Amino acid sequence: MNNFEFHNPVKICFGKGEIAKLPNLVPAKASILLVYGGGSIMKNGIYDQVKNALKGFNIHEFGGIEVNPHYETLMKAVELVKEHRLDYILAVGGGSVLDGAKFIAAAALWEGSDPWDILAKRYQMPVQKALPIGTVLTLPATGSEMNGNSVVTRWETHEKLAFGSPHVLPQFSILDPQVVFSLPPIHISNGIVDAFVHVIEQYLTYPVDSPIQDRFAESILLTLIEEGPKVLKNQTNYEAAANFMWAATMALNGLIGAGVPQDWATHMIGHELTAFHGIDHGQTLCIVLPGLMSLKRKNKEQKLLQFGERIWKITEGTTDEKIDATIARTVQFFESVGIKTKLSDYGVGREVIAKIVDRFASRGVKGIGERGDLTLDQIAEILESRLS
Amino acid sequence: MNNFEFHNPVKICFGKGEIAKLPNLVPAKASILLVYGGGSIMKNGIYDQVKNALKGFNIHEFGGIEVNPHYETLMKAVELVKEHRLDYILAVGGGSVLDGAKFIAAAALWEGSDPWDILAKRYQMPVQKALPIGTVLTLPATGSEMNGNSVVTRWETHEKLAFGSPHVLPQFSILDPQVVFSLPPIHISNGIVDAFVHVIEQYLTYPVDSPIQDRFAESILLTLIEEGPKVLKNQTNYEAAANFMWAATMALNGLIGAGVPQDWATHMIGHELTAFHGIDHGQTLCIVLPGLMSLKRKNKEQKLLQFGERIWKITEGTTDEKIDATIARTVQFFESVGIKTKLSDYGVGREVIAKIVDRFASRGVKGIGERGDLTLDQIAEILESRLS
Repeated sequence: MNNFEFHNPVKICFGKGEIAKLPNLVPAKASILLVYGGGSIMKNGIYDQVKNALKGFNIHEFGGIEVNPHYETLMKAVELVKEHRLDYILAVGGGSVLDGAKFIAAAALWEGSDPWDILAKRYQMPVQKALPIGTVLTLPATGSEMNGNSVVTRWETHEKLAFGSPHVLPQFSILDPQVVFSLPPIHISNGIVDAFVHVIEQYLTYPVDSPIQDRFAESILLTLIEEGPKVLKNQTNYEAAANFMWAATMALNGLIGAGVPQDWATHMIGHELTAFHGIDHGQTLCIVLPGLMSLKRKNKEQKLLQFGERIWKITEGTTDEKIDATIARTVQFFESVGIKTKLSDYGVGREVIAKIVDRFASRGVKGIGERGDLTLDQIAEILESRLS
Repeated sequence: MNNFEFHNPVKICFGKGEIAKLPNLVPAKASILLVYGGGSIMKNGIYDQVKNALKGFNIHEFGGIEVNPHYETLMKAVELVKEHRLDYILAVGGGSVLDGAKFIAAAALWEGSDPWDILAKRYQMPVQKALPIGTVLTLPATGSEMNGNSVVTRWETHEKLAFGSPHVLPQFSILDPQVVFSLPPIHISNGIVDAFVHVIEQYLTYPVDSPIQDRFAESILLTLIEEGPKVLKNQTNYEAAANFMWAATMALNGLIGAGVPQDWATHMIGHELTAFHGIDHGQTLCIVLPGLMSLKRKNKEQKLLQFGERIWKITEGTTDEKIDATIARTVQFFESVGIKTKLSDYGVGREVIAKIVDRFASRGVKGIGERGDLTLDQIAEILESRLS
């Protein structure tokens, strides 16, 4: 395996009723900005649980963080932090709220002239500090609760960009699987496939002799395949919800990606589909991935065969037949949990291809993926293959 | 699964040449106590690598920490820390040195009258603070590099006791698999079975619907079974050494034990065999475990069958036949990596049984294991079954 550093100091409090631990987790003297999304936490009782647990704490609130959180919205929260000299961000929500909180935490202490540079110049000007963050997760999917990653959308320009920093790792994250009981089913479907593709990005690359990482990745995939449908069938199945939730967290906390190559091309292309057409993040991954698996079948041959054999029990046929069957089985899984996998399913046509390629070109991108050899032409080819 | 907290802030630096990162990991102004064992680090060049990396740092040294580190020895190191007002413990060694360093770090700041209480009264008087610790691991086995556990032996009374505290979690641990190249083969054998049984203690209990934890545990077991023999065959096989090393760390860093019942009876009984007869820790586990698996076959039935099927591919026969085959296969694995599994193999006879039972009785122990229902009579029965 490759050399690596692994450092994940996020404290996880997992299980029924863990929200009650909040007063032991948030510093007593904190001036808190409580951030949340569109208000589902008002309906499912989580807002009340949080407020009850934090009675007597100094709390300001900022609601209305969108799915694919908007830079424009988050900057209003940053103003609030500065105005009231707040020093702690408590995020209650799903991946979008958590990602938004990370941007707010970094932007509040940003010393550069333009906070958009946190995203646009992430490598040239890495984040040096951020306010401390705690989270209460309400939707298993992105893994944001146990990593230092954040994705933010600039509404004005339809740009969706990411940044990552150890400074925005949450100090703690509370994961109570009961939050799953009242989720809209599409959120569960998106969460299942999002976690699934997070694993794939770190696993389906080229082999570097990493049996622990490979088997951990396969453990998460098998669990999502088993438990995801159980949750969809009965959202109040606590055990299934818990296993789904823990799988989604483990899918992107750095562990399975330590010491191995990573791809992330599916995510990069998918982000553009969200930016231009507002397609849900999980859905974009299910559109792009099958095309990428097929096109990069030579690069990824050994891992594709391993994935097919260990996950889908595909052992018969020529190499190409086995890979085709593996891709078909993966597509079938996505569809079985309620996610369509073609651009036409979302009313998107060929015109999007040139727009996406142009955007990568405008950023000076020559190639993406684990070897940096997925070219702009190949991005076009992948999208072409996913039209209908 | 059960509710749990998981918090492991140890920074892992893994790979070839990582020792060179030491000056970035140890605070520049630290007054360091460098602790090590019997001097193997002088022969294999690790001592020189560490000293070269830390040129200009303020370092005192304390060598000679034994296998199964002695309380009496460690207290001399504590005196040195106090005399020179040292404020950082750097442990370079295997599990014994690391465990010793944790005790030193806690004892140096202990405010109670008797530092032995850190071990003897671990639950009544938990450790409240400790000096910061960094480690350079030289022997994959115990997992001490990524947990807050420590086992210490009082030579005077032949007592081997453990304590655990988040305050003694290392700040960082450097894992360079090249350290395996020059290890005595028996250390590798012991390391393989030690890591194996660490997994078993957290996996072979009763089911609580925890597929992620189960499959991660099985991932580590399968990796040890595959990679362990490769390392024994060729110690300079870097990839095999790396996979063995990472497996041993993952076996006991809290992850696979989060949210599931844990046993640890094999360790508790094994510690007494070491305390009375000086049998290597790994060897004691291989003596005790087969007897415990057989005796507790009803309690552990479902997990024994899962272990047999997923690890050893045992699917034929009655339940008892499958369990017997699973135990036999496990014993065969221990023997195949060079560890004998009977008391007679170590020249120990029936007389040890009453001594061990008496010692548990003198501590007021009624039952141990995941349900606390492994009685003193059953401990005797297990040892009886392992005589020859």
